[in-house]
Amino acid sequence: MAESNTSVGVVKTKYFTFAKPPNELPLESGEAFGPITLAYETYGTLNNQRSNAVLVLHALSGDSHAAGYHEGDQHPGWWDAMIGPGKALDTEKYFVICSNVLGGCTGSTGPSSVNPKTKKPYGLDFPLITIKDMVDAQWQMIDHLGIENLLTVIGGSMGGMQVLQNMFSYPDRIQSAIPIATALKHSPQQIAFDEVGRQAILADPNWDDGDYYGHAFPDKGLSVARMVGHITYMSDTSMPEKFGRRVKENQQPFKFSPNFEVEGYLQYRGDNFVKRFDANSYLYITKAIDAFNLLNGTSVQNVFKHLRAKVLVIAFKSDWLYPAYQSHEIVKACKFSHVDATYCEVNSTYGHDAFLLEVEEETHLIKHFLRTVSKDRKL
Amino acid sequence: MAESNTSVGVVKTKYFTFAKPPNELPLESGEAFGPITLAYETYGTLNNQRSNAVLVLHALSGDSHAAGYHEGDQHPGWWDAMIGPGKALDTEKYFVICSNVLGGCTGSTGPSSVNPKTKKPYGLDFPLITIKDMVDAQWQMIDHLGIENLLTVIGGSMGGMQVLQNMFSYPDRIQSAIPIATALKHSPQQIAFDEVGRQAILADPNWDDGDYYGHAFPDKGLSVARMVGHITYMSDTSMPEKFGRRVKENQQPFKFSPNFEVEGYLQYRGDNFVKRFDANSYLYITKAIDAFNLLNGTSVQNVFKHLRAKVLVIAFKSDWLYPAYQSHEIVKACKFSHVDATYCEVNSTYGHDAFLLEVEEETHLIKHFLRTVSKDRKL
Repeated sequence: MAESNTSVGVVKTKYFTFAKPPNELPLESGEAFGPITLAYETYGTLNNQRSNAVLVLHALSGDSHAAGYHEGDQHPGWWDAMIGPGKALDTEKYFVICSNVLGGCTGSTGPSSVNPKTKKPYGLDFPLITIKDMVDAQWQMIDHLGIENLLTVIGGSMGGMQVLQNMFSYPDRIQSAIPIATALKHSPQQIAFDEVGRQAILADPNWDDGDYYGHAFPDKGLSVARMVGHITYMSDTSMPEKFGRRVKENQQPFKFSPNFEVEGYLQYRGDNFVKRFDANSYLYITKAIDAFNLLNGTSVQNVFKHLRAKVLVIAFKSDWLYPAYQSHEIVKACKFSHVDATYCEVNSTYGHDAFLLEVEEETHLIKHFLRTVSKDRKL
Repeated sequence: MAESNTSVGVVKTKYFTFAKPPNELPLESGEAFGPITLAYETYGTLNNQRSNAVLVLHALSGDSHAAGYHEGDQHPGWWDAMIGPGKALDTEKYFVICSNVLGGCTGSTGPSSVNPKTKKPYGLDFPLITIKDMVDAQWQMIDHLGIENLLTVIGGSMGGMQVLQNMFSYPDRIQSAIPIATALKHSPQQIAFDEVGRQAILADPNWDDGDYYGHAFPDKGLSVARMVGHITYMSDTSMPEKFGRRVKENQQPFKFSPNFEVEGYLQYRGDNFVKRFDANSYLYITKAIDAFNLLNGTSVQNVFKHLRAKVLVIAFKSDWLYPAYQSHEIVKACKFSHVDATYCEVNSTYGHDAFLLEVEEETHLIKHFLRTVSKDRKL
């Protein structure tokens, strides 16, 4: 652990279980589902006016551990570069909250959780969930924390979809919103990449209709799914910088073992992923992402008509998975509703990964934006 | 079969087995390999001067059946739109040849062929092959046909790599060359997509270290590999035109069965592919593609220094798998060697698939180019 004066230090994950009877959340599908537990972490201190809360929303493979170190860990949370004293989300000013989504596999209720009715993991008995369900569940937690209004909601990729869902469903409970590298709806190409990942999992005989808990896990399928994902997170510019065509050293004699560095990298990332992620969660969460469509039943002119929050939309030039034109559409939707929206396209070569890597640019943009929002609110 | 006056009509595949003792081809790896049979088809008539031969080179999943109809078939060969009387490769003028590559699975010797030493399919005993090996094998066939000089060599994608290899290795035996939507070497992103496909096959327990012939085939893995491929052959512009976000009708009740049209399409293409393609061929051929690097050991300034052929380089605007900058590099290499090279970037939305679909534009470009080449040769 490398603690410093810009780290939030050692943190602990907390758990919130819906207390309200009948302990159920009405899902977008019409079904009611419960009990639900959300794993969450907080950094910084909630002020007396309860007006400095910032909600961080994670992407497909993220979790509630966004910053600081878990006791004994070598690596900090997934957005530690952005959260801490003096950082973009300055924990000396803001009370930062991050929770694992409904359907996840790191503490929140998901397909790998035990179904209290059967005493076995849900597997495919887990209901189909949506981005709206994830957001609705989070608001139960926000209510529980006694917070009426969030200073901002921020996240990239699927985290950005949750930001957009907040802008649509909770317009009067957010002061501002920062959707990063995201879209109002998934394109056929985005759906297609997710579908290949799902098919790779379903093709693994260990998947066993989702009923693999306690037996062999569909690691090979999940690993292939993750490899596909990783290619789409990088760019045709960043990859040659990272790998070139260098051949991996200590090459195995087997004909189809990794040869080029990029092959070894993908396998490494795939193999690591299966240690920390649940294949069924991957299926459920990607399905929620693909089904997300804020323009379903409403037009780009009307989608944010109830919103009065300030919005900062960030996109990255080399991001071909969530291309800039999808962010333009978000800005357009804001402008149609006279929402105070700013658009920034960061000139990055990192591809979609840029939302995790372009720390300096993002810090600059977000710090300034939050200063303006806080001033409006007289924080 | 829909014969017309622009079709070459019913055709038959022919087979050529290396006749020269010791029936072996020296491979780029240093190994000697044989016996080798190549499946090939020809359309049109070789003229008396033997000067009107055109060699068509196929892509990863292609075969020797480029034009016309096999007896009883409903669908013509894979480039029928380009080959026939009056078409781009006009069979009233040219003698068109197309052979299945070494390593393939439709008549040419490949990993699914029977190893005469063991009387069983080669499987992983098949040697690692390269694009150069494919091209060298084809020249044995050209020699056998008694052709000293080819009027042109033409192909897209991996076919284009074979064109480039011909420009490098057989500069004085080709009058002209038409590399389409291809590259002097694969980029890390291109390697990465192939690697995911290979890992999907290797993850299929039916693959069984390549020794699956006579048992269950690794259909699920190969199908996932093909799905990944198909996404990269389309574009973010062509996909919404083709699919939008329409949900497939007659949806199955199962949670993770195809839902959006694009998902059903990918599964359909994957399922169809496994009926006609061998998983080991997929491994060997993609490995040959990834290893291809004409700039290995030479510079872009020198790679075509022995070439005096006319060259037409064609790229497509929306092709993000083989982006136009890779074709620019081919043109640059030609120009450095004072090769008479023309570059055309077709304004297509079809992505990489454009080389199979932009028939009208390609016909126009290629007809005119071949007319000039033929005139030079006084055909």
